[in-house]
Amino acid sequence: MRFGKRVRKLRKEQGYSQENFAYACELDRTYVGGIERGERNLSLRNIERIADTLEISLAELMDGV
Amino acid sequence: MRFGKRVRKLRKEQGYSQENFAYACELDRTYVGGIERGERNLSLRNIERIADTLEISLAELMDGV
Repeated sequence: MRFGKRVRKLRKEQGYSQENFAYACELDRTYVGGIERGERNLSLRNIERIADTLEISLAELMDGV
Repeated sequence: MRFGKRVRKLRKEQGYSQENFAYACELDRTYVGGIERGERNLSLRNIERIADTLEISLAELMDGV
């Protein structure tokens, strides 16, 4: 849950729509929606894709999560 | 890969054998071995179990990964 909120916050800060962000991460838009709502138990590989797209470290992505 | 090395380092620092650590995380010992060798694309839920067992935050667990 907190992870999803963190992703949504960082995505918006960087000016991505959910659709553009999903495209940049090479993930499905509905899947990204599910992540942000805390409905997805996503894998380390997909967590890394999100960090790479946001150009931040995994530690920074997890900050406060 | 880096994640697996980080887990191994922290586990050893806290004096856990791989077997005791797996037990504390409620994960299979062979699965923990696979994580440490970077062979497992583990889920956020299992990453959280590891952080909880080590009594550190997700950000701390991901430090340097």
